[in-house]
Amino acid sequence: MKESVGIGLLGMGVVGGGVASVLGDKSALLAKLAGAPLKLQGALVRDLSRQRAASLPDGALTTHADDILDNPDVDIVVEVIGGEQPALDYILKSISLGKHVVTANKEVMAKHGAKILSHAQKHGVQVLFEASVAGGTPIIAPLLRDLVANEVVSINGIINGTTNYILTKMAQEGQDFGVALAAAQELGYAESDPTNDVEGIDAAYKLAILSTLAFRARVSDADVYSEGITHLTAQDFRYASELGYAIKLLAIASKTDGAVHVRVHPAMVRSDVMLAKVDGVLNAIEVQTDLAGRVLFHGRGAGDMPTTSAVLADVMDIARNIVSGIEAPPLPSLTADVHISPMDALETKYYMRMNVVERPGVFAQILKVLGDLDISIASAIQKETDDDARRAEIVLMTHRAKEASVQAALQAIDKLQVVNEIGSLIRVEEWD
Amino acid sequence: MKESVGIGLLGMGVVGGGVASVLGDKSALLAKLAGAPLKLQGALVRDLSRQRAASLPDGALTTHADDILDNPDVDIVVEVIGGEQPALDYILKSISLGKHVVTANKEVMAKHGAKILSHAQKHGVQVLFEASVAGGTPIIAPLLRDLVANEVVSINGIINGTTNYILTKMAQEGQDFGVALAAAQELGYAESDPTNDVEGIDAAYKLAILSTLAFRARVSDADVYSEGITHLTAQDFRYASELGYAIKLLAIASKTDGAVHVRVHPAMVRSDVMLAKVDGVLNAIEVQTDLAGRVLFHGRGAGDMPTTSAVLADVMDIARNIVSGIEAPPLPSLTADVHISPMDALETKYYMRMNVVERPGVFAQILKVLGDLDISIASAIQKETDDDARRAEIVLMTHRAKEASVQAALQAIDKLQVVNEIGSLIRVEEWD
Repeated sequence: MKESVGIGLLGMGVVGGGVASVLGDKSALLAKLAGAPLKLQGALVRDLSRQRAASLPDGALTTHADDILDNPDVDIVVEVIGGEQPALDYILKSISLGKHVVTANKEVMAKHGAKILSHAQKHGVQVLFEASVAGGTPIIAPLLRDLVANEVVSINGIINGTTNYILTKMAQEGQDFGVALAAAQELGYAESDPTNDVEGIDAAYKLAILSTLAFRARVSDADVYSEGITHLTAQDFRYASELGYAIKLLAIASKTDGAVHVRVHPAMVRSDVMLAKVDGVLNAIEVQTDLAGRVLFHGRGAGDMPTTSAVLADVMDIARNIVSGIEAPPLPSLTADVHISPMDALETKYYMRMNVVERPGVFAQILKVLGDLDISIASAIQKETDDDARRAEIVLMTHRAKEASVQAALQAIDKLQVVNEIGSLIRVEEWD
Repeated sequence: MKESVGIGLLGMGVVGGGVASVLGDKSALLAKLAGAPLKLQGALVRDLSRQRAASLPDGALTTHADDILDNPDVDIVVEVIGGEQPALDYILKSISLGKHVVTANKEVMAKHGAKILSHAQKHGVQVLFEASVAGGTPIIAPLLRDLVANEVVSINGIINGTTNYILTKMAQEGQDFGVALAAAQELGYAESDPTNDVEGIDAAYKLAILSTLAFRARVSDADVYSEGITHLTAQDFRYASELGYAIKLLAIASKTDGAVHVRVHPAMVRSDVMLAKVDGVLNAIEVQTDLAGRVLFHGRGAGDMPTTSAVLADVMDIARNIVSGIEAPPLPSLTADVHISPMDALETKYYMRMNVVERPGVFAQILKVLGDLDISIASAIQKETDDDARRAEIVLMTHRAKEASVQAALQAIDKLQVVNEIGSLIRVEEWD
């Protein structure tokens, strides 16, 4: 029976500051629920002189990671620096020194999760990472605990708040990507270099983590096909709405015949499904399983306090085990082989928007290319866009088709003299 | 290190049959994840001769509960009989005999949860009850684990699938209550005696369980104000839709100034909030907290496999502890005093529909009664319903008002000569 549980904090940014504040403000409640007080033993910062909102014990701040990692009073290291390095080294060293780790680091877990978890197993410590996906919305513990008896069939998630905010602005206010991005940056929802968010990289990290847990097999970020939202235009949202769809950046993982498809890209979803209604910076993850059916988790995906909520859930989980002298429970084994299905093998419906010369027979030429590749059309919209220049816009929705065929068709269409430009290709996801 | 974990099943109805099948079908997966095989040692049934879908070991079926409870090979008793007795006795006896218990029984947990949990604590066993609320949708473990560092501000839930199905039919197809109920009964969504569902009793049980966990204080079903959906009419749904609202049977728990409000009743919610979009037999629970903000859990609230998913999550949780020789973790203490706020103290907005004599001055008379009680009107609709009989319908939406004043006003209005009938009173719930 330990009399207190020591916490070492790596990073005192937005999340670290939140964790430190709540550890202080709620110390009585947390002590009661954990069975012993949680004591913040130290915090790694970059700049000792900076003012902090959270009041910390004297001498708790340090610029040397080893002051935290080598401190025998630290039982749990909370890593909230973010980025690959030095976070990875700190995590591995903490484990080697027999410390439990709680991390909010999606990049490290997506790239090195298997290594970290097997290292933790060897040293008999716990590594928890609820905060690495969907911030304050519980998803990792529910996958591991509540859905444990289920086979996961698929995951469909909106797991990047920045892009969902931008897409919501584009849909609701008819804004183009650049305008909506600038608004997101102004509000602090997007970084000055927004690449990680708008190119789907952040969502791919998170999807790799979720897929690994859902399919009980190692999926890394490199396995995830990812495509961003930068090429979407206000027109696409208008057409989508006319056709009864919303456009969302979806993170999709599915398993068929033993192969796992993992992909992040803009997708059209029918406007009446729950995911279509997830607006602004909110996140939602729908898990489809064999027993429980579709279960949806919806909430804030970022922010200091939501992320602190997730970090402290993990901290409390470990703290209760430490207090009652319980050994770390076994981690899921990630040794299973998994076959990652190539993007070319995907079969779904497609939306295509293209700008063509307005002249009799153009539409027929395009349909011929599609027909030759076995792609049939479910609906089509043709609009004159510029009478003088004789340009028109053609919007097509296909029936289910093969990704490889669709890509080949687009290449062929792009070469047609009568086609000025292929505007967008958006995959259409339909569920029962 | 135990070599296998013995399961004793009390009840082989829809859920019990599901649990038995999945224990059989997924034995390899469950053994791998638990660290040892789960063995179904026996199942209590009412009728030995009935055909069963799940194949059970010879001699596993019994009509005597003691064959299960006294069996030394049973480590976990799974109670899926339902109802207060004999389920309560079986649960208490199992605990006394040192067995862990998993139950799907909302009535027993709502009425006797505190007693059961303290009995379990005394005997060092676990009692888990994820399946008692919202079937396959995780909510109890997330409240206890994922949101542990949060103060819960409120819970707003749609936790009865039968009534949500009926309300959805009434909204989408303009049906009256009786017609929609008959459709639900035909599909097996409502029982032949639907009282427990349509009067809000089932939802009150579940809300008592959720509130107890959320506020860490004992709330029993008797503390919950509950009002059913039987008095709602097709007109109410038309007016609600005109005003931009949906009507849902909400289970609401909130805490203000140390007092807990717990109530189940039909409520109007703005049509653009997530809860308004939960249709059919689905369940959803939105938990508002200080750190994580609003978190929504959405999925199937009943059915054999969704409920089996929840039961087995609990079974696996306990099984892992048994296998690794871990003692039962401490249960939440339910000794805290809680002040239940009386319904009269509620303050919200109200929708009222009344049938009046069509005559000049009638509206003014009604407004005077309301004004005298400090109730002001946000919007009003007056419609002639029967020209010959000179009857009209008045629909009012109030600003925030006190429940006590509104009830007094309705009594006074009902006594006015010009008022034929007060049709409906529906509380309007608005969140940011």
